[in-house]
Amino acid sequence: MSAHKPESCRSYVLTLSCPNRPGIVAGISRALFDLGADIAGAQQFDEQESHVFFMRIVFSLPASEPELATLEGVLAGIAADLDMKWSLRESARPTRTVIMVSRFDHCLVDLLYRWRIGELAIEPVAIIANHPRETYAHINMEGVPFHYLPVSSANRPEQEARIEQIVCDTGAELVVLARYMQILSDRMSAWLAGRCINIHHSFLPGFKGARPYHQAFARGVKLIGATAHFVTPDLDEGPIIEQDVERITHADSPDDLIRKGRDIERRVLARAVRYFTERRVIPTGHKTIVFSP
Amino acid sequence: MSAHKPESCRSYVLTLSCPNRPGIVAGISRALFDLGADIAGAQQFDEQESHVFFMRIVFSLPASEPELATLEGVLAGIAADLDMKWSLRESARPTRTVIMVSRFDHCLVDLLYRWRIGELAIEPVAIIANHPRETYAHINMEGVPFHYLPVSSANRPEQEARIEQIVCDTGAELVVLARYMQILSDRMSAWLAGRCINIHHSFLPGFKGARPYHQAFARGVKLIGATAHFVTPDLDEGPIIEQDVERITHADSPDDLIRKGRDIERRVLARAVRYFTERRVIPTGHKTIVFSP
Amino acid sequence: MSAHKPESCRSYVLTLSCPNRPGIVAGISRALFDLGADIAGAQQFDEQESHVFFMRIVFSLPASEPELATLEGVLAGIAADLDMKWSLRESARPTRTVIMVSRFDHCLVDLLYRWRIGELAIEPVAIIANHPRETYAHINMEGVPFHYLPVSSANRPEQEARIEQIVCDTGAELVVLARYMQILSDRMSAWLAGRCINIHHSFLPGFKGARPYHQAFARGVKLIGATAHFVTPDLDEGPIIEQDVERITHADSPDDLIRKGRDIERRVLARAVRYFTERRVIPTGHKTIVFSP
Amino acid sequence: MSAHKPESCRSYVLTLSCPNRPGIVAGISRALFDLGADIAGAQQFDEQESHVFFMRIVFSLPASEPELATLEGVLAGIAADLDMKWSLRESARPTRTVIMVSRFDHCLVDLLYRWRIGELAIEPVAIIANHPRETYAHINMEGVPFHYLPVSSANRPEQEARIEQIVCDTGAELVVLARYMQILSDRMSAWLAGRCINIHHSFLPGFKGARPYHQAFARGVKLIGATAHFVTPDLDEGPIIEQDVERITHADSPDDLIRKGRDIERRVLARAVRYFTERRVIPTGHKTIVFSP
Repeated sequence: MSAHKPESCRSYVLTLSCPNRPGIVAGISRALFDLGADIAGAQQFDEQESHVFFMRIVFSLPASEPELATLEGVLAGIAADLDMKWSLRESARPTRTVIMVSRFDHCLVDLLYRWRIGELAIEPVAIIANHPRETYAHINMEGVPFHYLPVSSANRPEQEARIEQIVCDTGAELVVLARYMQILSDRMSAWLAGRCINIHHSFLPGFKGARPYHQAFARGVKLIGATAHFVTPDLDEGPIIEQDVERITHADSPDDLIRKGRDIERRVLARAVRYFTERRVIPTGHKTIVFSP
Repeated sequence: MSAHKPESCRSYVLTLSCPNRPGIVAGISRALFDLGADIAGAQQFDEQESHVFFMRIVFSLPASEPELATLEGVLAGIAADLDMKWSLRESARPTRTVIMVSRFDHCLVDLLYRWRIGELAIEPVAIIANHPRETYAHINMEGVPFHYLPVSSANRPEQEARIEQIVCDTGAELVVLARYMQILSDRMSAWLAGRCINIHHSFLPGFKGARPYHQAFARGVKLIGATAHFVTPDLDEGPIIEQDVERITHADSPDDLIRKGRDIERRVLARAVRYFTERRVIPTGHKTIVFSP
Repeated sequence: MSAHKPESCRSYVLTLSCPNRPGIVAGISRALFDLGADIAGAQQFDEQESHVFFMRIVFSLPASEPELATLEGVLAGIAADLDMKWSLRESARPTRTVIMVSRFDHCLVDLLYRWRIGELAIEPVAIIANHPRETYAHINMEGVPFHYLPVSSANRPEQEARIEQIVCDTGAELVVLARYMQILSDRMSAWLAGRCINIHHSFLPGFKGARPYHQAFARGVKLIGATAHFVTPDLDEGPIIEQDVERITHADSPDDLIRKGRDIERRVLARAVRYFTERRVIPTGHKTIVFSP
Repeated sequence: MSAHKPESCRSYVLTLSCPNRPGIVAGISRALFDLGADIAGAQQFDEQESHVFFMRIVFSLPASEPELATLEGVLAGIAADLDMKWSLRESARPTRTVIMVSRFDHCLVDLLYRWRIGELAIEPVAIIANHPRETYAHINMEGVPFHYLPVSSANRPEQEARIEQIVCDTGAELVVLARYMQILSDRMSAWLAGRCINIHHSFLPGFKGARPYHQAFARGVKLIGATAHFVTPDLDEGPIIEQDVERITHADSPDDLIRKGRDIERRVLARAVRYFTERRVIPTGHKTIVFSP
C-alpha cells in the first residue's frame, strides 16, 4: 500500500479460492507483507452455499525482491495448508487470445480496435474463421495470423483438432467466440473449460434456440439483451460473466433488433474479455464470481 | 391543433385499429376537423405482419360543439366503412380500477400513493385480497372498499364469481393484479381479456415457475427484471406491456434480489397502469402496441 | 397504408413545421391520399410554448405516379397557406456526410464500420482531420477522400474556407464532428446551423470546459455521459439530440472514465447521426424534436 | 470466514482509513484472527491522489469472546500506530434517523415504507417538517414523533437550535433531508457534516438553482436525474453518494419531468440511506468512497 512505488516495481494479480475457514486473509496478507509486497487492492467473497472463500489481490513487488519463484514457493506452502487453488499473474502481461468468428464481424472488429488502441490487454495470437479471408476483406488484422477452417458435420473432428493445435502452438490462454456460429463438441468445450468465452446473442435464459431476435420480436418483449458466458458442454448454459440490455418497442423490426443486438453484443463481450484479462472472473459451479472493477 | 384552447374544451383520446388501406388518416382527420376538433397529438403504426393499422389521437372539442354522441355517430360510420375497431374516451375521466393483492403489498401501496397525489389517473373502486384486512393494517386505504376473499382449491369458483360480481358492480374498467399470487381460472382470464394487468416478478420469458429470484440466483445472472403483461389463460405469457431490469452481482443473496425486485416491480407496474389509463396500449395477437408517452 | 406495396414504390420522408392551427393533418393527409401515397407511419408534436406544430410522415408512392415534382408542387401550395416549413426526401438515399476528426479516432472508426455494413445510411464524401493520414494508418478508409487540414490560430480562417469548399464541392448534407477538437468560428457554426452534429465528451450541461472526465473524477460523480448536439456559435450549448450515461465508482481512474466515455460517445454519436439520416430530428429554438424510432 | 457460525455470534462492520503504508491489511486481519473473529467480507481502496487507504470489513465474533471493549482496545492500539480513523458497529443495530421533509412527501413515504417492511435498517426517531401535521394527514407515521418547525428568515436560528436539540435528544446518527426545501445554515451544515444526506432533485452538477426540471425542459435534455449527497456548507455541492437518471423526450412537459423525478429521487435517496446504514460510505475530501453492495 505504499504510495511511492519505485519504477522498478512489478504489479501482480493473485486470485485464490479455498474452503472457508478463519485466518485465510491474515495468512495471505502476512505472507505478502513479509515478502515486501505492497497491496494496492483486494476483494473477497464468502460463498455461503458452498462454504468456499474467493479472493483477488493486486499487489506490487520491488524488482530487487526475490523472484516470482520465491513468492510462488510461499504460496504453494499456504495452498497446501488451506487446500487452496490459486493463480498468480503479472498485471502488465497481456492475455494471449485466439478469436474465433463466423460471418458477422462486429465483435471481431471491436476487439481488434480495443486491442490496437491499448484499451484491452489481450495479445491476439490467431483469428480462426469458418469463412475465408475475403469475407473479412475490409478488416485490417494487423498481422494476426488468420486461419480459415470451414466446418461441416463431416470434418468437425479434424477441424477441432486443428483448432486445438493452434491453441496449443500459440500458447493461447483465452479463446473468444466472437459470434462464432459453430457448436463446439462436448470434448472441445470440456477441454476449453474456464478459458473460452462466448457471446450469446440474446438475453439468457430466455429465447433459446435459433433466431432469438425473431423470437423476441414475435413475443413483443420491451427489452433485448446479450450474455457473455464461459463455454461448457451444456450449450449456452455456461456460467454467465456479463449481461446487458437495451429497450425496444413494437415499432422495432427484427432487423432493428439485430442492429441493436450488435451494439449490446460487442460491449458485453468486450467487458467480459476485460474482466478475464484482469483476472476478475472466477467460475464456481454454474456461476461466476466477478470482482467489480 | 389550435394553441388557444378555450377553457370550455374537453380533451378526448381516440384509439382505433383496422385493416390497413390508404386514406384512413385522411378520413379520420377530416372527420375530426369538420367537427371542430383540435388534434393535440397523434401516433400511428402499420403492423407489417398482420396488415393492421393502429392509431391513437388526442384532441379537444369545444364544449359548445355537438355532443359526444354526434362524434360517435360519425366514427361509427367510418368504422363501418373501414372495418375499424375504435374506442373514444374523455381524457380527464379516471379509470375505474380494482386492485387485487396477496401478502406482499409494495405494489398496492405504490399504486395508492400515486393515485392519492394525483399522478395516476385511476379511481380505485375496490381492493380484493386473499389475506384479511389486518395483513394490511398499516395501509391507509383512503376509504376504498376492501374485500377479503381467501382462495382455496375448493372455493375458487365461488370466489371468482364474487370477484366478477365486484368488477361488474363497480363498473371497473381495469383489474390490476398487484402481486396477487393466485392463478385465475381460464374462464376468468378470458373474461378479463385486455383489461387485467399482472406484474410478473421476473424477467419473462426466462425463469418461469416458482421462486424466480432463487432461480436467477442459482443461475448467476447479472440482471434481474420484471414484466407487466395482460392476463390471458396462458399463464404469464400474456402480451407484454412494460419491462425493466436492474444489475445484480454474485454478492447479492436471494433476499437482495427480492428487495431489488420490489423496486422494479412497482415501477414497471405503475408504468403499465399509466399507459393503460392513457389509452396508449393496444393488444394485438400475442403482443401489444404501446404508443410511447 | 396498403400492405401490398409493389416493388416499384419509392419511400419518402416528409417533415414539416408550421404555426399550430386546426386542419393541418387533414390537409396533408388528404393531399397525400389524392396523390396515391401510402402512409407507413406518422408522428406529430404540438409544442405548447411556441404554438408550433411538427410532423414527420413516412409514405410511399408508386413509381407510375406523377414525379416528385408534382408532389412538391402540391406541398408548396399547402406550405404557402399554412406558413409551413417542409422537407421531402427519398428514404433510400443516403445522407452525404463529411466526417471531421482529431487524434482520437473511436467515433470515426465506429461510423465507418456502421456505414460499411449498411447499418447507417450515410455516404461519407470526405474525412477531414487536423492530423496527417499517418495518424490513422490502421484505418481502412475505404476510398473516402482524406483531407489533412491542420489548424492554428493563424490559419484558422483559411482552413475553415477550405472546409467550407469541401462541404460545397461534395454536396454534403451533414457534417459530423467525430471528436474534432478544434472550435469552429461563429461564422462557420452559423453557416452549418442544423446540419452539423458534435459529440461532447461529457454530460451536458455539467462539466463545461477542458478535461471533463478529470472534472467528473475530482467531483466523485457516480455517472458519466456524453451528449450529441447540433453545433451553434454558443459552444457546446447547441440543441441536444441524444445523451447517454454509464455508471462509475470511486475506483475508476480518469483513464477508466475516458475509456468508458469512448463507448458512450460512439454509441450516442451513432444514434444522433442515425436520427438525422432518418429525418427524425427537427431543431426548434434551443431544443430538438426527436421523433422516436 | 468459518462457514458454521454459531447462533450466538454477532456481526460487526469495521470501517477505517489511514495513510497508506505496507502491512495494514496484515495487521488488521491478524488482530481480528487473534480475537477469533470470522471475516465474512472485506473491501479496500487505495486512493492514489491522497495516499489514503480505506477499508470496510464485515466479521462476526462468538458471543463467548471478550467483549467489544477488548476489540476496541486492540483497534485503538493499531490506530495509534497507523494514524488510523476507525469506526466499529454491530451490523444488526439500526441507524437512529431523523427525517426532515417539506411539502412533497414521496421520499418520506418511501423511507417509512422501506423501514416498516424491514428493508431499510433505520430507526426513525423523529420527523421534522416545516409544514403542519395536516399536510401529511394521509401518512401513517407509525408513532414516530412529528415536529412542526416552520422556518422563516426571522426564526431560522431558533428553529435550527430546536432541530439540533432533537438530534441530540434522540441520539440520531443520521439526518435525512427527504425533500426538505429549507437551506441549512453553514453552522448547522458543518455540525451535521458526514451524517446528513440530502436528495437533490436534479442531476448535479448541472442545473443548479431553482426549478431544475424547468431548466432541463427548456434546455431539451434527453436524460434527467437525481443526486444524493452529504450536506456541506457548500450548497448542493457536498460529496456525492449516489445518482441515477431516466430518459425523457421532447414530449415530456415540466410536470412529466417532475413526476419522473419523484421516482428517481426516492430510489436514489433510499439507496444512499441504505449504503449509510451498512457503513458502505466513507467521505474523503470532496468525494465519497462507496463500497459496492
